[in-house]
This record gives sequence, C-alpha cells and structure tokens, in this order.
Amino acid sequence: MKTRSNHPLAATALAVLAAALAFGAWAQQKAPSAANEPIQPIIPVPVKDPAKVELGKKLFFDPRLSRSGFISCNSCHNLSLGGTDNLKASIGHNWQKGGINSPTVLNSSLSIAQFWDGRAKDLREQAGGPIANPAEMASSHELAVGVLSSIPGYRAEFRKVFGREKIDIGEITEALAAFEETLTTPNARFDKWLKGARKALTRDELAGYQLFKNSGCVGCHNGPAAGGTSFQKMGLVEPYQTTHAATGRAGVTGKDADRLTCKVPTLRNAELTYPYFHDGEAATLTDAVDLMGRLQLGRKFNAEENAQIVAFLKTLTGDQPKFTLPILPPSSDTTPHPEPFGGK
Amino acid sequence: MKTRSNHPLAATALAVLAAALAFGAWAQQKAPSAANEPIQPIIPVPVKDPAKVELGKKLFFDPRLSRSGFISCNSCHNLSLGGTDNLKASIGHNWQKGGINSPTVLNSSLSIAQFWDGRAKDLREQAGGPIANPAEMASSHELAVGVLSSIPGYRAEFRKVFGREKIDIGEITEALAAFEETLTTPNARFDKWLKGARKALTRDELAGYQLFKNSGCVGCHNGPAAGGTSFQKMGLVEPYQTTHAATGRAGVTGKDADRLTCKVPTLRNAELTYPYFHDGEAATLTDAVDLMGRLQLGRKFNAEENAQIVAFLKTLTGDQPKFTLPILPPSSDTTPHPEPFGGK
Repeated sequence: MKTRSNHPLAATALAVLAAALAFGAWAQQKAPSAANEPIQPIIPVPVKDPAKVELGKKLFFDPRLSRSGFISCNSCHNLSLGGTDNLKASIGHNWQKGGINSPTVLNSSLSIAQFWDGRAKDLREQAGGPIANPAEMASSHELAVGVLSSIPGYRAEFRKVFGREKIDIGEITEALAAFEETLTTPNARFDKWLKGARKALTRDELAGYQLFKNSGCVGCHNGPAAGGTSFQKMGLVEPYQTTHAATGRAGVTGKDADRLTCKVPTLRNAELTYPYFHDGEAATLTDAVDLMGRLQLGRKFNAEENAQIVAFLKTLTGDQPKFTLPILPPSSDTTPHPEPFGGK
Repeated sequence: MKTRSNHPLAATALAVLAAALAFGAWAQQKAPSAANEPIQPIIPVPVKDPAKVELGKKLFFDPRLSRSGFISCNSCHNLSLGGTDNLKASIGHNWQKGGINSPTVLNSSLSIAQFWDGRAKDLREQAGGPIANPAEMASSHELAVGVLSSIPGYRAEFRKVFGREKIDIGEITEALAAFEETLTTPNARFDKWLKGARKALTRDELAGYQLFKNSGCVGCHNGPAAGGTSFQKMGLVEPYQTTHAATGRAGVTGKDADRLTCKVPTLRNAELTYPYFHDGEAATLTDAVDLMGRLQLGRKFNAEENAQIVAFLKTLTGDQPKFTLPILPPSSDTTPHPEPFGGK
C-alpha cells in the first residue's frame, strides 16, 4: 500500500513546500515588509498648491524677513547642509548666540510639534517665531508684512496665491509651511531595504539596525522620521550633566519635571545634521550614539557596536530636496531699509 | 535732349534710392546694430569645464570657507538678490561692518579688475581675498584648505577636476572663478533692442537711453557690462562730500590723487543691486542718477529726465543665473569645527 508520503511526487512537493516556507521566512527576515518595522519609509507629501510652494520657497530664502536684511530661514536651516547650519548654537541678529541647536527643517512636517520644546503645534505656527525673535531674525510680523507689501513682485504673487490684495502674517507663514512640507527626503538606502531591496544595506549596517532595535533606540526613534513622535527626557537612566540653559518642555508645561525633556529629534539625514542634541554638544555620530546609549539605555556600546549603529544611521540619508535657487523680486523705493547696524 | 534725370525710369529709381536711404537711416536709428552702440549685448561665457563649474558652485555656497561656518560667498553676493546683499555695508565675521558696499558678482568677469579699487587682477585673485579677510569670512587659506581636505566628498571632486590628491588654495579660487564666470545675465530687454527688436523698449526707455548717451554717462558706463571698463574719480565736476573711509584706487597706486577713484560699477541689473556707490549711500536709482549727473557731469536732471534714465536702466536687467541649489558634501569627524563665537 502506498502512502502519500512515500509517493515520489508527493515527497518532492513537500520538499518544495518546505523550501518555499524556509525561503519565505528567510526572505522576510532579510527583506522585511516595511509594515513590520518600527521605522517606516518616507513618503513625499504631494504638492497641493505649487504656486504657494513657490512663494514659500522665495520667502524661505529671503533675508528681508529679518531686520538686518542678512538672515533668512535658509541661514540656519540651510538646504545645502541638510536643513541645518551645522553649528552648536546658531547665529542670530547682531551675531547673538542662539539658545539652542537649530533642528533640521527636513522632514519636519512629520513631527508631532515644532521646536525642541514643541511649543508650536505645526510648521505654520513655527514659521512666525524666528522672524520676530529678537535673538534670531529680529524683525516683527508688522515689519515683515510691511516689507513684503512694498515689493510689487511679492504683492502680485500673494494675490495670485491667496486671491486678495492685503498680505498678512498668516499668509506668510502658510506659504512658508507649504514649502517646508515639500522638504522630505525619500529613497534613503534604508527605505530601499525596507521596501525589499535586500542588497541595499551591508552586513554591518544591518547589524547596526538590529542593535538599534534590540537596544531600545527605536523606543523613541521610530516612525517615518525615526524620531519626532514623542517628547522624552534626556538622561533617563543616567542624568545628563549640563550647564546649558535650555529648559526644554518645562518651558511649555510649566512642570519642573519636564526640564531637559525635548522632542525626540529625527534621525533622518543624521549624517548631515551634526552637531547633535539640543545643545549641539555631540560633534559626531559616534559621540551621540555613545552618549545616548549610556544616558537613555544604560548601555555602553563597544567600538564595534557603535560603528555598526553609526553605519546604520548613515543609511538614513535620503534624496535631498532638489530645486532651482529662487530669484527674489527686488525691493521698491518705498521698501523699509534693512537695519543691520542698529538702524544707522 | 533727354537728360538722365528727366527720364521717368531714372526719376523713379532715384526716388526709390532716396526712400531706401531714408528708411535705412530711420531703421538704423530705431533698431541699431549693436556694433554702433557704446553698450554691447552680454554674451554668455561658454562653459569649458562643467565639473570645475559645479565644484566652484558648491564652494560659492559653502559657509565652511568662513571661520564661523556661517558666511559663504553667497552671503554677500547673494544670487537670489542680483549677486549682492542689498546692504549699504556688508556684514562680516562677528557682525563686523564691512568697509565697502559689496559689488555684484553678476557679469563680474567682464571687469578690467576686481574689487572697487581693482586690487585683484581677475576673479581668481579676488576669490582668495574675502576668505582670509578678518573682517569678512575671517578664515585663512590654510584653514580653508584644511577644512576642504577633511571632507571626502570634496577630496573626490577636486581629484576629478584637478587630477591630483592635494587640494590647494589655487584650486579653490580657480574653481570659484570658473563658476563666477558663468554668472552672466544675457537677454536683457536692452540687449534685445540692441539686436534689432524695435519694440523691446518703450518710448520713455529709449528717451532715457538717448539722455544716457547724450549727457555723457556712457563715457564711463560702456561696454557689455555698462561699466567695469575703467577707473574714475567720484566727483569729477563737483566734489563728493563724504566721511566714508574708503581710499579707493589710492590704496593700490599710493597716489593721493587717486583717492575716491574707483572702478566704474556695472549698470547691468542695477534694478537689483541697490543701494549704490562704494559707500551704498544712494538708496534708489533715482538718487544715484541725480548724484551722478551733478557730480560727474555737472548736470541737474529734471524729474522727467531722471525717470527716463531710471526706466532705461531697468531695461538692463537680464536673465538671472538659473541652477539647482547645490547640496554640499558633509564634514567628517576630522573636519576642523567652525568657530563662530571666539573659538569656544
């Protein structure tokens, strides 16, 4: 009597099935579907209103939004440099030292809130801040509106985008936010791997990602931006020793317990956004990984582990926003003059 | 006896000839060949070495050529703003007030020399100046070379362009100059008129050009750049009253007679390059035309004449350089850190 298992064809079929299952499990491990991973691919935000984005791009590059006529959004969120200035502390009006490291504008639309302390609920609310901050662009919303309203090229463009004659600060920040929403960085090697390109990452980079997951880094650095999804205290396990004045989230909540609690920064393009942390105290990814391991996870990564995590982080560099440098409409004879040197 | 002049055919031929001559004179006046005009069309410089131009573009936008990591060539020669900063005096390292108005980089390759006082013979020699000027970018040639040599992306690009491992300041300035040479602005409405497009200029603009020629402005503002071809004393007829410290050409020649002698600035894109003069004292084209008329020509233009000349000057705005914002290669762990705040 023949059993099915003894049938040569059945045996072959079983072997094939087993091989297929094994291959499937292996393939899943090696080339996971993105759905199973704590970091998701960056999906570019569709451009809804190209004219508004174009206007916002001009404003982003326009130093006339500052009192000096010298500082634009792009000065501290330099799109040639990963959307940051690569300085520990930014330089504001009259060379004032900024109170906090400039976070990258890249993928910032993916954050739960804006600024390190999350005091702005979205990009639009954020954009009004630096313009009027005396330590940053040192203008005022009234002056910014006055400057733009005096420029015929801007008047025409605002009219086209918003359908009315009068420019106001809400339109300015809305256009800036519309441009900033386009500043996503898809197609990182890690995203290609997430989407199934098994050879997109090296063995060391994959080992780094495993460490990143297994050590708990993903507890905070998750989602498409590998960060930006929560507020966390810096120094969970071991206190962060600092004399830096930033109060973090406490400035928003009023709770002393929230001191040194900050929005978790995105790790997208971390290769480009040095130095790290709200105080810019970590000059390199190696330093940042070491400190985070000890302070947040109570774990001292050895040199090999650290290098593997750094290698993984560098796979998060995506396509940088690619666009033509905007040409700005000239001022008119009635445009308020910039005042770089005390109004003289 | 018939004379030739009485022959009906001969009379017709003569009339046709006379009409043709009259038409020719009229056509020449209305749509002159550029060869007859003191201002010539801008002819773009052919790009000889695209890789060198690309490298130069990156360097032009790279603030790491400054000690602070904040000031790039584009900070004061902003290609979104007509190749200038639109400030009376530029802002240098530590917010120092610049000694002289930043001239536009647009069409600068057409000048006989560089800087207001012509102390650099060409763009390459010029490019080394601001990098090492303590009041401007405040770096040094040694530091700039050190910074770029520490950046793998730059090392590869310099190797590709110059064919050797070692980066030196000569290569840096050569690449910058190669990029700057591409910054011409062809196709101004005036150039279209020069090339025969009779309707490219309005009646007022043409009247302004006639005034510009007949009053003697073209004596200095001539050639393709409408300037940049000679050094001239500011205040030829009427002395220029100023307390500004700039010595002008005297600083180069050592002759006191050359005080307030400067390179004649280009008028190309004058609509964009406000404020005017080496001290930036003229805020508007109206002011500049008025002062030039009185000081250089002993002529007080009335309001209509002034407006016509200004209208003509605005026809010199050409196509602005159009290119993708460069993405800069990231620093490495060994890159010297920027020192915006006294090296702290």
